[in-house]
Parts: sequence; C-alpha cells; structure tokens
Amino acid sequence: MKNYDIVVIGGGPGGMNTAFLMRQQGKTVALIQDEQDSLGGVCLNRGCMPTKSLLKAATAYRYAKQGARYGLDFSLPPVDLSRLRAVTDEDLDKLRAAVQGMIDGAEISVFRGRGAFGSPHEVRVTKADGGTELIVGEQIVIATGSHPVELPFAPFDGEYILSSDQILQNKALPEKLLIIGGGAIGCEFATLYHTFGSEVILAEAQESLLPREDREAGQKLEESFAAQGIRVKTGTAIKKLAVGNGKVNVEYSNSNETDTVDKVLVGIGRRPNINGLNLAAAGVKTEGGAISVNAFMQTNVPHIYAVGDSIGGLMLAHAAEKEAAVLAHNMQSSNSLPLEESAVPRVAFCSPEVAAVGVNETTAGIGAFTMPIVPNGRSVVDKVEPAFVKLFVEKDSNVVSGAIIIGEAATEMIHEMALAVENRLTVGQIGNTVHVHPTHSKNIATAVRHFN
Amino acid sequence: MKNYDIVVIGGGPGGMNTAFLMRQQGKTVALIQDEQDSLGGVCLNRGCMPTKSLLKAATAYRYAKQGARYGLDFSLPPVDLSRLRAVTDEDLDKLRAAVQGMIDGAEISVFRGRGAFGSPHEVRVTKADGGTELIVGEQIVIATGSHPVELPFAPFDGEYILSSDQILQNKALPEKLLIIGGGAIGCEFATLYHTFGSEVILAEAQESLLPREDREAGQKLEESFAAQGIRVKTGTAIKKLAVGNGKVNVEYSNSNETDTVDKVLVGIGRRPNINGLNLAAAGVKTEGGAISVNAFMQTNVPHIYAVGDSIGGLMLAHAAEKEAAVLAHNMQSSNSLPLEESAVPRVAFCSPEVAAVGVNETTAGIGAFTMPIVPNGRSVVDKVEPAFVKLFVEKDSNVVSGAIIIGEAATEMIHEMALAVENRLTVGQIGNTVHVHPTHSKNIATAVRHFN
Repeated sequence: MKNYDIVVIGGGPGGMNTAFLMRQQGKTVALIQDEQDSLGGVCLNRGCMPTKSLLKAATAYRYAKQGARYGLDFSLPPVDLSRLRAVTDEDLDKLRAAVQGMIDGAEISVFRGRGAFGSPHEVRVTKADGGTELIVGEQIVIATGSHPVELPFAPFDGEYILSSDQILQNKALPEKLLIIGGGAIGCEFATLYHTFGSEVILAEAQESLLPREDREAGQKLEESFAAQGIRVKTGTAIKKLAVGNGKVNVEYSNSNETDTVDKVLVGIGRRPNINGLNLAAAGVKTEGGAISVNAFMQTNVPHIYAVGDSIGGLMLAHAAEKEAAVLAHNMQSSNSLPLEESAVPRVAFCSPEVAAVGVNETTAGIGAFTMPIVPNGRSVVDKVEPAFVKLFVEKDSNVVSGAIIIGEAATEMIHEMALAVENRLTVGQIGNTVHVHPTHSKNIATAVRHFN
Repeated sequence: MKNYDIVVIGGGPGGMNTAFLMRQQGKTVALIQDEQDSLGGVCLNRGCMPTKSLLKAATAYRYAKQGARYGLDFSLPPVDLSRLRAVTDEDLDKLRAAVQGMIDGAEISVFRGRGAFGSPHEVRVTKADGGTELIVGEQIVIATGSHPVELPFAPFDGEYILSSDQILQNKALPEKLLIIGGGAIGCEFATLYHTFGSEVILAEAQESLLPREDREAGQKLEESFAAQGIRVKTGTAIKKLAVGNGKVNVEYSNSNETDTVDKVLVGIGRRPNINGLNLAAAGVKTEGGAISVNAFMQTNVPHIYAVGDSIGGLMLAHAAEKEAAVLAHNMQSSNSLPLEESAVPRVAFCSPEVAAVGVNETTAGIGAFTMPIVPNGRSVVDKVEPAFVKLFVEKDSNVVSGAIIIGEAATEMIHEMALAVENRLTVGQIGNTVHVHPTHSKNIATAVRHFN
C-alpha cells in the first residue's frame, strides 16, 4: 500500500495535466492509466491525434486530386490504409515517447491498470493479468474519459457497425460508407473517407451539421460538403441497420429512401467512463451518467475532484487541460477559482475546417453578424472558398462574445477570436488591428469593417 | 479640365483604399492608374497576388514530393511554368474583376495613364499614346508605389539578371538560380524555385535572413532552408555578375568561392516611384528618395498627402491600407489621427512561413523570450517542424509588445499576436486564453506558459 498526496485515475489530457501541475507544487502524485492505452489516453491513442495524422494524409491527397486547379497533373496512388495507419502509428510513437519523457521528468508514479475506489481515500488498481495494488491518496482526481455511444438497435460489431475507435483500425477503403452523426467526429471522418475515394453518406438527425453550433454555419458546412460530393442528409434519423451478405442495409426514419453500404460509422456522441470505478465505495455522486462536480471541479466528496470527459460537458482535450488547471489551483487553495469555459474554442478538423468560440446564438442583448461575401485575395489564389466569419456581439458594449469561422485555416484563425472573447475585446479593438494581406484572417477584418 | 474633391495618383492598395474611403464620405474622387498595371497596382499584378498564386502551386507540389511521409507515393509531373502562370493569370483576372466591380460600384472616376503635377492643384494624366488630360483636385494624394532596386554593377536585363517583376514572367525552370537578397521577396522565391526543383542559392549581405527581423529568427529560418537543401549564404555580398555563354558567373565579395548559374533574381529592396511626378511643380519635398510626410500622412504642401510605398517605410499592402485609413480620416478632420504602425504585421510567405508584429529586438525595458523546443502534437502529425515562437515583453507590465513566429500557419497565427500588441494585452491575458489541441497556435500558449 502506497500513499500519495494526489491519486489521479486516468492519464489522458485532463489527468496528465493535473498530475504535472500538482507535481510542480511539490505534491507526490500517482497516475493510473488503463493498460488499453498509453499515457495520453483516448486523445493520443484513439482520438485527436490519429485522426489528425490521417487527415494530414488526406490533405496531401486532396492537393494531388485538385492538382489541375494549380496547373499540375499528379497521378493518384492507390490509398493503402494499412500504410497510412503505419505512418500514424509512427506519429503516435513519437507522441508517446514525448509524453513518457515528460512524465518521467516530472517524477510522477505511474500505475498501469484499471482504478476503482476501495474507500473514499483508497484506489485499487487491477491489471489485465489480475494483479492488484492498493493506493491511498489524500486527494483523488477522477479523469477517466469517455467512450463512444452505441445505437440501441445496432451495437458496434467491429466489422460493419463501427465506433470511431474501430474505424481508426480499418484497413480497407469501403466503397460506400454511412456516417451516423454530423458532429465533429462524423464530419472529420466524412472528409477523410470522401477524400480517399469512398462514397460517403453523412446522416444527422438534427436540422444542420454540427448541431450544437450556429445553424447558419452548419448549413454552410453542409453546402460545402454537398458541393464536394458528400451526400449529407440532415434531419434524418436511422430506423434500421441490417447486416447481411457483407453489406449493411439502411432504413431511414423519415423517408422511404434506403441505402446499402459497406460500413457504418456511428458517431452520435460519447459517454463518460464511470462504470467500474466503484463510485459507491467513495460515495461520489453522478448525474446523467457523468461525475457531478461543482464550479470548482469538486465532487460531493470534498477531497475527490473530477475533470475532462468524465464530467461530460465539452469533451475536448483542451477543455480538459483548462479544467485541470482550474482543479490544480483549487486543490491547493480551497476552491477559489470557478471553472469558466465560455471562451474554450470548439473545432472540427474537416475540410473546410470549422472553429467556434463563445456564444453561438443570439440571446437578449446579443446580435449576430455574418460577413458579407466579398472577394478575399487569399481564397482566390488558394482556389478555395473564402472564410465564412460570423460574429456574436453584445449590443450595448460591442464586445465580441462569440464567433464561428469556416474555412481553410479556421482552427488557427479562431485564436484571435478566442483572445478577444476571453478578454472581452470590442469589435472596434479587432478592427483597429491590421490584418495581413493576403490571408484568410483578413476576412475577420472584413467582417468587422462591415459591422461598423 | 475636370474638378474633383480628391485626386489620387496611383491605384494600388493605398490609392484605392483612399479613394473608397473618401467616396464613402461623399467626396468626388479621381483615381489615376498607370496603364502598365490594372487597378490593384503592383500588389495585384506583380507582387503579393501572383507570388501567392504560384506559392500555392508550390505547396501542392511540396505535398506530392513529400508524399512518402504521409504514406502516399505520388508521381511528380513536370513543372510547366507557362501553365502555372496561366493559372495565376486566371486568378488575377478574378481579382481584377472584383476590384473593378468595387470601383464601379463606388462611382470613382478612373483615369488611365501617368499622373504628374502641373501645379499644386493640377495633375496631368499622360496616356501611352501621348494623349493628355488635366485634372484639378482640391486635395491630392500621392500613392505611386515603388519599383525594384537594381545592383549598380548588374542592371536588370530581363533574361539573366531579373527583377521580381521579370521573374514572375519566367517560363523556364532554371537549373540553378541565384537569389540576391534574403528579405521577404528573396525568401518567397527561394521556396518557389527550390520546391519546383531548381538548385537555389540565396545570398544575403547581412548576417541573417530577413535582416530587419530578429536575428535568432532569421537564423532559424536559415537552418530550415538549409535543411531543405537551399544553399543559404548569409554575410555574403556580390562582387560581380558576368553574363556569358547563356550563364551568369558569380563572384562573391568575401569568399573565393564562385558559382555559375542560369538566372539571377535581384531582390535587394524597392524604391518609391517619385520620378516623373514633377513634384517641383507642386513644391512637394522628398527625403531619401521618398515623399516626405508628417505623422498625419501630409506632405509639406498642406493639401497634398501621400501613402503606401511612395513614402518608404514598411512597403506592405496592408500597411498601405492602414495608411489610407489614417489619411482618409485626416483629410476630413485636419490632422487629428497620427499614423501608428507598430502593430502592423510583417510576413514572408515562404516555407516555413514567417510572421512578426511589434518590436523585434530587446531595448531598455523589453525582454525577449524564445519558446523552448517541446513536442507539439500538431507538428508531429503534420510532419513539420514545430512553430518557433519568440515574444518581446515589457518587463514592468508584462505587456506583449512584439512577437515573431516561424512555421506552417505563421501568417494566420500572427493575428492573435497582432491583436495582443495592438491592444497592449499581457502575457497573462494570452495565457488565460485556451488554445485548441492540436494546433500550431498552441505553441503560443506553450511559450506563454514557460514565460510565466
């Protein structure tokens, strides 16, 4: 039995960052990471990073496909998903080595296995081989992440009905792929497989893609996807998926149309990992399937905190990092810093990229303004659509309280808007800032100029 | 003889924007544009835009060259510069049409020909066919731009010793290209020709590339260019260029090394276009070959103003646009707004991109901080160097008063820093802003975190 100041259950972005920050304060820290993944968790092993690695290959492939628009004729090689995955694995190995180096450097004690409460201060780690170890923590952090949600009538089978984890291991390009769910994960895989040549159907039950975001932006993304040849079916739920003869027959809820596809990706959401934690032994409460925390990241048990996907909410790596920073602060100073996530950017790395920050709808006192379509020099020479920029502005103060951008560099461009939202800058303060000619970001200046 | 409230000589970014802004105030505006270029001036016709269009083709070509790092084997087509230039011309036609549409919509009177003062209020426009027209302006704006500087001992010949204008018309890929001058123009053409397969020598007389920028950053760019296979020779002036047998023999000032190259691009700077303006007839003074203006963009003749490259300084399209905004304000409100260009970003669209804003050196009270090299997830999955980020921070206030970034998306990333510099935000305010995982911009957060 080992004693630590802090025991962190889960080594993804939320757990690791908590561990680093508490070690910097001189605390002894144990970090428990399931053997299924390396440190880095889902983000590194089955989420952000492998998808981005594959999407980079897609970017290279798309440039070659579109060579004629630049005056270049490339021959397109066959896409060998096994080889692409091998490249991704090399990337992940580099990231794993980097993470391990940081963990070693910080002298964090890592335990591999599944953590579960034995009592309010005890966590039992169970290895795959059945061996167990008991760790005692003065404070305990739950950072166990999340897992993909299944359709109740069509559970993941790993061959035809796939989770995002499973499709990342897919080695054969499906002729026809149905993606269920038009959130960030669905949109990213739509770009990936469409670029490599699969026929992609993207079905979203809500009225627009990225249904948690601004509807006009979601519609704009849908238009762009449709123009590329992705079959987007918004307002379309799935009635039935029937596997047979090596195919999946698809029935939709609100149309007589049917489809027969080779594979189905179900990307309808993620659910916190709370089963197996034996929360009852610690008396930690949950709500709606997520660990309940207050604004200070604290559960109902004062010495137990939680961060990241396990508490629900944004379920983004960089949100988990922010939560870790808040939590690390509060674990030492008795809850003085409340979590404030209104300026955490939300992104989809599809093509075109989408990035949003702050509020995404008009409420009392907030007006929306969409940049008029005017020529943008960068988009003309790049042969892409000009960046779509929509701002949400407080009517009284002209403070920018939200923005959504669609376009080639949106996931980088959003940081100017994040800085503005975080620091409550006004439209005028953005307008006074000179934007480089020719860049995509110049459309932010254009938006602001037309707003004034 | 026609009378206008405002006569603008020169239809580049500075002149056009002045014209638009004054028309918005209800003034009658004449805009004089040399017949050599369309409206848009050097930027649209022979500068920013054609180079960016060709650099986009280079980006596509680079992706294909590097296909193996993504797990894809592309065959590389022969590069046909005539075809690439035809694509560029299509882009420029779109931009010309857009500009013309805006000019027509604004009801600006355009005169094609060369403008020269006849008296302090009179400008004579002379067409290529010799026809002339006299225009009278209550106020007059000089926005005549700039032209490339020659080497005194090796004037441009259009075949071997080329200006940036001339190399943009080049139709044959040189086997070996010498670029003289490691400023933004030289670096961009180095990327362009190196990518397409020319052997490129980039010679810069100063100690580092981009010699007006931070030296550490210039050295970092040099390392990156050298690793790609560009032969960078900093601290190297040219002694002699001798054309013979279809080649150019090169002698350097400070080494015994010689080279024989197929073409030479001279990119050692640009000089304001003031000859032919007959400034004496208006009594407008110059200094160091540029129109002299005060902080309000006003020449020594109170009703005559000047903007853009004609006044020297930054010589950037977006700087000219800012100057136009200041000028337009002052022409109506008797010089109440001084020009403040400390937050105008400066960029080079080479690969890797370079972007800077604000101060670029340490002076009393300002400290420099270079981001330590730590793994960046985005750079690993993108298979590129992580973004180099250097901040210049006021020691007392922690206000960020300058930044320089080198990396794939630097020209977009710089806008977060420009917003910070313009609005005097602190390191802490940037650090509080959540940066998306995984992005290049996250290295700004990393820099800030290590700074604290």
